[in-house]
Amino acid sequence: MGLVVQKYGGSSVADAEGIKRVAKRIVEARKNGHQVVVVVSAMGDTTDELIDLAGEVSPIPSGREFDMLLTAGERISMALLAMAIKNLGHEALSFTGSQAGVITDSVHNKARIIDVTPGRIQGAIDQGAVAIVAGFQGVSQTTKDITTLGRGGSDTTAVALACALGAESCEIYTDVDGVFTADPRVVKKARKIDEIPFEDMLELAISGTKVLLGRCVEYARRYDMPIHVRSSFSGHQGTWVRNKPEGARAGMEQAIISGVAHDTSEAKITVVGVPDKPGEAAMIFRAIADAELNIDMVVQNVSAASTGLTDISFTLPKTDGHKAMEALTRAQPGIGFESLRYDDQIAKISLVGAGMRTNPGVTATFFEALSNSGVNIELISTSEIRISVVTREDEVAEAVRAVHTAFGLDSESDEAVVYGGTGR
Amino acid sequence: MGLVVQKYGGSSVADAEGIKRVAKRIVEARKNGHQVVVVVSAMGDTTDELIDLAGEVSPIPSGREFDMLLTAGERISMALLAMAIKNLGHEALSFTGSQAGVITDSVHNKARIIDVTPGRIQGAIDQGAVAIVAGFQGVSQTTKDITTLGRGGSDTTAVALACALGAESCEIYTDVDGVFTADPRVVKKARKIDEIPFEDMLELAISGTKVLLGRCVEYARRYDMPIHVRSSFSGHQGTWVRNKPEGARAGMEQAIISGVAHDTSEAKITVVGVPDKPGEAAMIFRAIADAELNIDMVVQNVSAASTGLTDISFTLPKTDGHKAMEALTRAQPGIGFESLRYDDQIAKISLVGAGMRTNPGVTATFFEALSNSGVNIELISTSEIRISVVTREDEVAEAVRAVHTAFGLDSESDEAVVYGGTGR
Repeated sequence: MGLVVQKYGGSSVADAEGIKRVAKRIVEARKNGHQVVVVVSAMGDTTDELIDLAGEVSPIPSGREFDMLLTAGERISMALLAMAIKNLGHEALSFTGSQAGVITDSVHNKARIIDVTPGRIQGAIDQGAVAIVAGFQGVSQTTKDITTLGRGGSDTTAVALACALGAESCEIYTDVDGVFTADPRVVKKARKIDEIPFEDMLELAISGTKVLLGRCVEYARRYDMPIHVRSSFSGHQGTWVRNKPEGARAGMEQAIISGVAHDTSEAKITVVGVPDKPGEAAMIFRAIADAELNIDMVVQNVSAASTGLTDISFTLPKTDGHKAMEALTRAQPGIGFESLRYDDQIAKISLVGAGMRTNPGVTATFFEALSNSGVNIELISTSEIRISVVTREDEVAEAVRAVHTAFGLDSESDEAVVYGGTGR
Repeated sequence: MGLVVQKYGGSSVADAEGIKRVAKRIVEARKNGHQVVVVVSAMGDTTDELIDLAGEVSPIPSGREFDMLLTAGERISMALLAMAIKNLGHEALSFTGSQAGVITDSVHNKARIIDVTPGRIQGAIDQGAVAIVAGFQGVSQTTKDITTLGRGGSDTTAVALACALGAESCEIYTDVDGVFTADPRVVKKARKIDEIPFEDMLELAISGTKVLLGRCVEYARRYDMPIHVRSSFSGHQGTWVRNKPEGARAGMEQAIISGVAHDTSEAKITVVGVPDKPGEAAMIFRAIADAELNIDMVVQNVSAASTGLTDISFTLPKTDGHKAMEALTRAQPGIGFESLRYDDQIAKISLVGAGMRTNPGVTATFFEALSNSGVNIELISTSEIRISVVTREDEVAEAVRAVHTAFGLDSESDEAVVYGGTGR
């Protein structure tokens, strides 16, 4: 039995009862012979309450002070959790991100981890203690100021520590049973995925599946660290995110569909009447990049020969929509397009799985399923293991269910989901 | 205009409004040309709420984790205060006790400061920023664990930083106007003291005056750091605690009474029928010391020649009374006294001022005042600048008022309070 890193989110440690429940689960892992490092988030709504307080004293709080403020949240939960474990007769020591050696860059509120030096954590577990580490926080390598890692930061802390400590695996405890073939709130027949490769999980995450964020999956993939996503409220096995042995995968030529993700958080901007000559698209996306906005899907329509003009559409988070429209409006004279269209009533639906490109039937089945349920496709984008389409937002539930059924993902079948492509 | 250290307690920063009020006061000091270092406590009842949470998860929380938990409180208040100051257009940076270089021993929950290395604080003020420092907390020199300084710790942080930084003075902001000649809730005519020497303030503090704790006064005296105790709710001058120039004091042979303190937090234990022979008293106080209890006043009665037995009485905090009685009961067979009496209905009244010993009229006036108002004296203890007596608890208010009046401290007189001794 080796070392395991466990991460508990805010809903798992929302109150004293929750903390005691989590403490028992940790002690169980100790009793089973594991060394345990625990990464914990702030209790329940603590972080939101601190954000509200900051808003009361200052409309635009400083990033450095905001990080100092927010990191008080994990300090409370980790100390209480350590006390609760000690109360069950096991040794436990809590550590801040800085004490745990989580070294970051100096970008407050969304720092990136650049090194992990977990000497004190290793010392604690060598002594037989459970090490409790504050998630979401680190210390800047250059300024020595306290930083926070931004959205989903605690998951990243857990994976980074697991990698640095050479853990067997990283367990991410949450309030659902694992990763599902589609959002169970939309697709009642969605099935829990027992095992999924890093690449597929990464595509699902960036396509709208909320359970894990792409950032922590990316980190785990780089270091080949298995992640086990599971519920802190049950003892069930959850979803393992890890690489199959090479042989197992290479021997299989069929497409293996992991799941269907959807995302309604994006908007579509169409730049109408762009002169179809070299450099035009570059100017458009330079204007967006200069405004520090990230875009997702991009499609350029075929140019109409009669006018020499084309349209370029792209999607980006709704929250960035206003900024993007402003940036493009400012750039319009230099670029010389005709007009802009903004549309935030869209949804993105993505099918994720291995072997798609070599199994053209997958794309056909996907589009047929949408067409049969009357869903119109507005944009298409594909990667090695993903096909995404943009549809109307109010059609998304129907579209996801249709695709889920078409690929045999519905839970009547107890077998592994395999789609054998048969040509276009 | 030099450097000033300001300390604000929990009641001054209890909510967003309080924090903004304090921020304005700090900015005023900056506008007046001062460099400012601020020491801040946790907001309002934060610390008590965290203590309650700890009690919910563990009946006997670990000292290390308890300190980790409690230090979240100042982290919140200091970050918010820094934001509020920045919002007024002035630069501000917050620092934990550890970042501020407050180095302590490893005794959790009541650590003592052993060094202050305020390099980062000096750097911040050199840049023109206000440095906000978390009070009450430090970092252990040997274990690098977070520690707290115990009761009144934030005042001690402020004085220690003022000394290390070579500040002009240390301002302790509180919810009263300063130090008074007696507790204004008991003596309506009590006057605010404009200036008081360290020694007198120290005696008042250990005799029951709550505004400053002896610990921080002791620290300030050692480094000759002037303390200004004042209200954060008004602009009034408060009480300066500092040494008079040597000449000013030495030239004056009259007794100068600083004030009357009282304390109802102690109990009296009388050991009855102790054999009057060498070593008996030592055995009694060894038993108390072995139980790690501190005692305050001690009086041994004159032995009755007929029996060869004597009584020994002492006072100690009520909270330690039970432990002391247990320790003495266990030691009774070895010591051989007759019985124990416990009395927690007592009060201690202390008169503090310079020149008492050489002005015997002071003692006489003190005892006459008590006698004239029908107050019986049970124990007496004196130091160079203090006389303390123990009376019944229910007589304390009357006794304090009588003494206050007898020494001309009542506020009708606007002059400095001087008592000219005239012999016994």
